[in-house]
Amino acid sequence: MKAEIISIGTELLLGEITDTNASYIASQLPLLGIDLLWVTQVGDNLGRMREILERAWDRSDLVLTTGGLGPTEDDLTREAIAEMLGEELSVDPEIERALRDFFSSRGYKMPESNIKQATLIPSAQAIPNPRGTAPGWWVERQGKILIAMPGPPSEMQRMWEKEVSLRLRQRLGHQIILSRTIKTFGFAEAAVDEMVSPLLSSANPTLAVYSKPDGIHLRLTAKAESKEEAEEMIAQREEKIRSLLGESIWGSDEETLEAVVGTLLTEKGLTLATMESCTGGLLASMITDVPGSSAYFKGGLVAYSNEVKVSYGVDAALLARHGAISPEVAGAMAEVARLRLGTDIGVGITGVAGPTEVEGKPIGTAHIAIDDGKEKRLAYGIYPPLRHEVKRRAALHALFELRKALLSLK
Amino acid sequence: MKAEIISIGTELLLGEITDTNASYIASQLPLLGIDLLWVTQVGDNLGRMREILERAWDRSDLVLTTGGLGPTEDDLTREAIAEMLGEELSVDPEIERALRDFFSSRGYKMPESNIKQATLIPSAQAIPNPRGTAPGWWVERQGKILIAMPGPPSEMQRMWEKEVSLRLRQRLGHQIILSRTIKTFGFAEAAVDEMVSPLLSSANPTLAVYSKPDGIHLRLTAKAESKEEAEEMIAQREEKIRSLLGESIWGSDEETLEAVVGTLLTEKGLTLATMESCTGGLLASMITDVPGSSAYFKGGLVAYSNEVKVSYGVDAALLARHGAISPEVAGAMAEVARLRLGTDIGVGITGVAGPTEVEGKPIGTAHIAIDDGKEKRLAYGIYPPLRHEVKRRAALHALFELRKALLSLK
Repeated sequence: MKAEIISIGTELLLGEITDTNASYIASQLPLLGIDLLWVTQVGDNLGRMREILERAWDRSDLVLTTGGLGPTEDDLTREAIAEMLGEELSVDPEIERALRDFFSSRGYKMPESNIKQATLIPSAQAIPNPRGTAPGWWVERQGKILIAMPGPPSEMQRMWEKEVSLRLRQRLGHQIILSRTIKTFGFAEAAVDEMVSPLLSSANPTLAVYSKPDGIHLRLTAKAESKEEAEEMIAQREEKIRSLLGESIWGSDEETLEAVVGTLLTEKGLTLATMESCTGGLLASMITDVPGSSAYFKGGLVAYSNEVKVSYGVDAALLARHGAISPEVAGAMAEVARLRLGTDIGVGITGVAGPTEVEGKPIGTAHIAIDDGKEKRLAYGIYPPLRHEVKRRAALHALFELRKALLSLK
Repeated sequence: MKAEIISIGTELLLGEITDTNASYIASQLPLLGIDLLWVTQVGDNLGRMREILERAWDRSDLVLTTGGLGPTEDDLTREAIAEMLGEELSVDPEIERALRDFFSSRGYKMPESNIKQATLIPSAQAIPNPRGTAPGWWVERQGKILIAMPGPPSEMQRMWEKEVSLRLRQRLGHQIILSRTIKTFGFAEAAVDEMVSPLLSSANPTLAVYSKPDGIHLRLTAKAESKEEAEEMIAQREEKIRSLLGESIWGSDEETLEAVVGTLLTEKGLTLATMESCTGGLLASMITDVPGSSAYFKGGLVAYSNEVKVSYGVDAALLARHGAISPEVAGAMAEVARLRLGTDIGVGITGVAGPTEVEGKPIGTAHIAIDDGKEKRLAYGIYPPLRHEVKRRAALHALFELRKALLSLK
């Protein structure tokens, strides 16, 4: 099956946004055994959009569009598809009702221009979009399929995962392609690459190494005649990878470090508190990204100055003796968080996010401590000296150490 | 001048990399007054590449390609351009010498396959690439220009900045295109669209409305003979927009809400503290994303449970009387943060991030308070009921209200 992606929006052609939707879909199509041959970006211009749709409909079996489904005048994807297929747009009463409900449940009246989003053509079915007001379109004619999805990545990705990929998989059948992603923290990409290098040349299952915001990911992909066979191929290869990478592996597939930590805390019936300096609340925010985290996360303290650290209960003499950027102070912060908020475990982070050095310590330095009341585990990291990177890496590193600490607790 | 970008490489179509080259070039073209109408991605396939080059050469005045200039068998951009124009490839002795020098200066012998990178066609001039071994091509024929640049972003961007953009600017002269983005918070996209609808049909300056993570953006773009004229056109239109959208506008261009707030705090010499419930530290983390925020942000408290709120100093009777999700508790949290951390201003947020209702209040509800010691300003929001959205919108909303409060302070 030959596929083609059309990314719609003048903001793409102005370079205001990068087309991550196309690369997301491109990364998903091989799992369905679909070949992607073309990706085109086009602005919010009816004539050019229609021309590109016509060519795509002509040369491809599957056309995927993103963008241009909003409520405003320059959202023209529906119009262009209707023109290309010579079909009439009309308001679908069921979508209209859902749309009006969406607004009224939020206490708003629907702006009348939004009615556009309730239109369909005879060959199109609506695809639900619970994250926004624009349903997608699933269009079928002459054995070809055209799928129009919204542009905001969170809406598009949910629609892909929960609707489009499932329907496509059902349609295509036969050969099974399964993937598994193994997630690591602590090693550089090139180091992981070297450790698994004998496995990189395998044709089935394939192995690819990616650098991601939360560490280095290894992706195994197996093709087989049955799900069981593909699963077996992946399981064998995964065992080998686990023996090579050991405890740098913290999770797999859709898992996040914050959710892994949350599951461990829940299983062990433990509660958590944090005290952060250089990460400025990011660790607490990541922990509370997990639904249900209120059951184990009691609260956090952000101390951006030494006075505030002392006012929370960090010993002023200790601060003076070791400096704020020290393992001792990280340990004291973890202990204060634990005692102050009455939890089983406390995490402390102190470091230098930049833009300037602190106490002669370079930007990117961080000390992390995990205190469980019996023992303090300490870790140290030095990250790329960019403010966002330091915050992100230090918070991830703290979660990674917290996971190890939780695993070692009875 | 109508331009078109062709991004070449099978890795794009497999989703292994995102096409940031296209968005980089797209963001640069308006500064030269060049309109970008199409972006196409194509794999390392001679036939499809040639077909796309032919169409581009036919419909555009300027064709820009990236990728496919490497030394390996699947680097086919030079071959495809030569075929498309019916010209012969031959090795250029000067490029060959430079290439051999490049390798020998690094102590290597040039692999013979690299000789491909020293080839030209009669219509092409080489464009220097000091960051790599692939020179670019500047092709001119029949009044049209085709520019082939390497795929690695650092090589491409240097070539663009130091060579291609300068030559294009020299060639084009005259017309200037300037843009300005006006950023708003609080209204839905369709509502903003309706408010500015009389301006949307203007051809110069153009106005476009975009929904972004930090609110609704309006982008004005003016074409003129001089920078002054373009600036004047934008200034006039911006005044009109400001009169229509009033205080929902919080910034422009590259500004972020957290930086705008930071600038106001610095100007007024005021300090800040936060106490967060449903946002779980995200507000503090956003505030501390700004370099230099340690000068005005003293610290934050994250209180995920009622006991912790009380332990920080929120009145237990008030909590019992009004419930945690109430303007009264938001106000008390703001006051406690201010007093507890000894700052001029305190911000409190309490709400329901989900996945379940709290105290019968729906997911997505949030109460925000700003306390400056004399007055408590309260705000209320209801956001899409997804955990991440609730956290993000509530934190942005608090920053937006904080900005308003700071502006009204003497």
